Amino acid sequence: MSGSIRGKNIVASPIRSLVPFADKAKEEGKKIIHLNIGQPDIKTPRVALSTVCKLKDEVITYGPSAGLPALRKEVVTYYEKFDAGLKQEDVFVTTGASEAILFALLTCCDNGDEVIIPEPFYANYLGFAQLANVNVLPINTTISNGFELPGAESFEPMITNKTKAIFLCNPGNPTGQLYDKDELTALMVLAKKHNLFVIVDEVYKEFCYDKPFVSVLSYRGMEDNVIVIDSISKVFSACGARVGYLICKNPSIQAAVLKIAQLRLCPPYYGQQLAIAAYSNASIYIERVKEKYLKRRNLLADRLSKMEGVISYKAQAAFYNIVELPVDDAEVFCKWLLTDFEIDGTTLMMAPANGFYFNRSLGIRQVRIAFVLEEAMINKAMDILEEGLKVYNSK
Amino acid sequence: MSGSIRGKNIVASPIRSLVPFADKAKEEGKKIIHLNIGQPDIKTPRVALSTVCKLKDEVITYGPSAGLPALRKEVVTYYEKFDAGLKQEDVFVTTGASEAILFALLTCCDNGDEVIIPEPFYANYLGFAQLANVNVLPINTTISNGFELPGAESFEPMITNKTKAIFLCNPGNPTGQLYDKDELTALMVLAKKHNLFVIVDEVYKEFCYDKPFVSVLSYRGMEDNVIVIDSISKVFSACGARVGYLICKNPSIQAAVLKIAQLRLCPPYYGQQLAIAAYSNASIYIERVKEKYLKRRNLLADRLSKMEGVISYKAQAAFYNIVELPVDDAEVFCKWLLTDFEIDGTTLMMAPANGFYFNRSLGIRQVRIAFVLEEAMINKAMDILEEGLKVYNSK
Repeated sequence: MSGSIRGKNIVASPIRSLVPFADKAKEEGKKIIHLNIGQPDIKTPRVALSTVCKLKDEVITYGPSAGLPALRKEVVTYYEKFDAGLKQEDVFVTTGASEAILFALLTCCDNGDEVIIPEPFYANYLGFAQLANVNVLPINTTISNGFELPGAESFEPMITNKTKAIFLCNPGNPTGQLYDKDELTALMVLAKKHNLFVIVDEVYKEFCYDKPFVSVLSYRGMEDNVIVIDSISKVFSACGARVGYLICKNPSIQAAVLKIAQLRLCPPYYGQQLAIAAYSNASIYIERVKEKYLKRRNLLADRLSKMEGVISYKAQAAFYNIVELPVDDAEVFCKWLLTDFEIDGTTLMMAPANGFYFNRSLGIRQVRIAFVLEEAMINKAMDILEEGLKVYNSK
Repeated sequence: MSGSIRGKNIVASPIRSLVPFADKAKEEGKKIIHLNIGQPDIKTPRVALSTVCKLKDEVITYGPSAGLPALRKEVVTYYEKFDAGLKQEDVFVTTGASEAILFALLTCCDNGDEVIIPEPFYANYLGFAQLANVNVLPINTTISNGFELPGAESFEPMITNKTKAIFLCNPGNPTGQLYDKDELTALMVLAKKHNLFVIVDEVYKEFCYDKPFVSVLSYRGMEDNVIVIDSISKVFSACGARVGYLICKNPSIQAAVLKIAQLRLCPPYYGQQLAIAAYSNASIYIERVKEKYLKRRNLLADRLSKMEGVISYKAQAAFYNIVELPVDDAEVFCKWLLTDFEIDGTTLMMAPANGFYFNRSLGIRQVRIAFVLEEAMINKAMDILEEGLKVYNSK
């Protein structure tokens, strides 16, 4: 007896396809350097961890559906530096950014509606769109210019009466790009003209290395259009706490989000307590973390720039880099690294990038590298990549 | 600029409609006894709370999408007493039972499919069905026989080619009923005959006062049809931890659930650690909690049976009782209790029961009472209800 067709059709996570080969390699005693997933190695703020350990609750009760007031208040204050002008009621605490993505799609779009998303994009956007019966219209961006945002004139012809939103990831996963004020402004004008929501996943906003981050929440006059998705997962290296946010000032969206939030009762209590404490000393912690990523970014870009046949660029933000390799099929090469290659008993795992494209024939020679490990490890990984490419291409 | 039509159409939680009046009463200095929500006053197991406080993790990382292996293993062992015959891969840890409900609907049903649910039912089933584009066909049960499950002959004429599942809550919220072996067996035969899934929310299964609980997981030959929803919220009084389960042995459903689980990355880490510890000493704790609820159940039934014009019954399980009051509109009466009545500065909040019916004109004279408070408090609440009814009806 089989389940729903939609259950069968949901796209499987592309970064998991190589997991069986990685597991086998580990069983055989190989060490694997994981540059394939966005799981930071950075320690969660100590004050946040110890706060959870000191909680004195005797009953872990349901909390408010929109999140603990103390946390919503912290988020309002935190966003002052981004000129967001938030009130507490604009902030909905969600179970990770994942839940916020689903809530945004459900409240902005009806079945059969469309959202335009620059590709390559975080693969799970597509899965959530499938759950919400929303069609994704990809707009292509390319490695040749570091995945720059296309101009409004490229978006405009795609807009139909079914188009409800433009969905961005800024800073970008998997690209590491950062959209600047001019690029965003052009899209805002377009969104206003066509009555579109602008949904922006800003979870990597603290890690911008070359130019300042601009939040879409800072645009006056766009209060009705803008929905921001955020999370503590990356900024406080607390992915497992499952705390994210949907932030928006549109009263109609707020009312719908609240009802959906009430359906699932409340976000996780412990994660929220951890988050409250994390914000209390955020700036020093974040600055330190950003410095680490900056060094890693520089090292990675430097190593990649010296590899023959490799096309890449310096990631401006986040902790990802798309890299085009001198191979026919990056997935086959990534698999080969796991099954047939090693240096001193160690090999490398990367994410084939075609899974981040709507059209999976694009990005076939590309991989995504997450620079979430110490520099020594990144250096070792790049040694493996460089040598691996030589051996692979001399076969 | 307004959002999606579905966002507007999502039913608001019925137990929240009186909240503004309760808030106002509190502002005016009134005390309110809350029998309106299923938030137990019972303490979370101390061993579970202290385990969370002793965690030594330095990074709160993503966990496996299906849940921590140690927790899945505990659940397998825990279910042995229900003759469930589980393997670890049958258990998916979810963010509360809420998420498991949504996963079950998404993986069993396509857009426009139908599920049959005995009403009155937990109101959020309807909201989740709306999100999943699934139509709810209610089958009426009545207070006159304590909300007994209708026979298969009542279900069968409702089944169309769109019907994909029968959805039960056993033990029942809001009814406190418990379906026995014979009732369930009849439905199982029907489900087999028509290739239907049987989705059963068993979150209250530990609180059965008069006869033993039968899990649908214990039916051999129904492995492909059965999906169970469970949670630690009620059994371990840990509602805010957000840990639930979807349990099923059907490989097609398992594959789809895993993909959706991967989309949202993982369930909350701290709640899972709490749950692992809670299971380690579960039986003593649960027995003690059940005794408390049993005393409260008996007290409540006794008090209600002595009130003139009140129709009720002894709840067999869970911690809810539907009560039919000698008033025209229970919601108006519940509101009046909050705004216009008190005894020694205290009043009572109950949940109007019409919100638990698909057809909201049903249950118009009924309320749901949750016996989640100490006996002294229940006694005081019943004093208020008894006197309140007299005053209200003499107006």
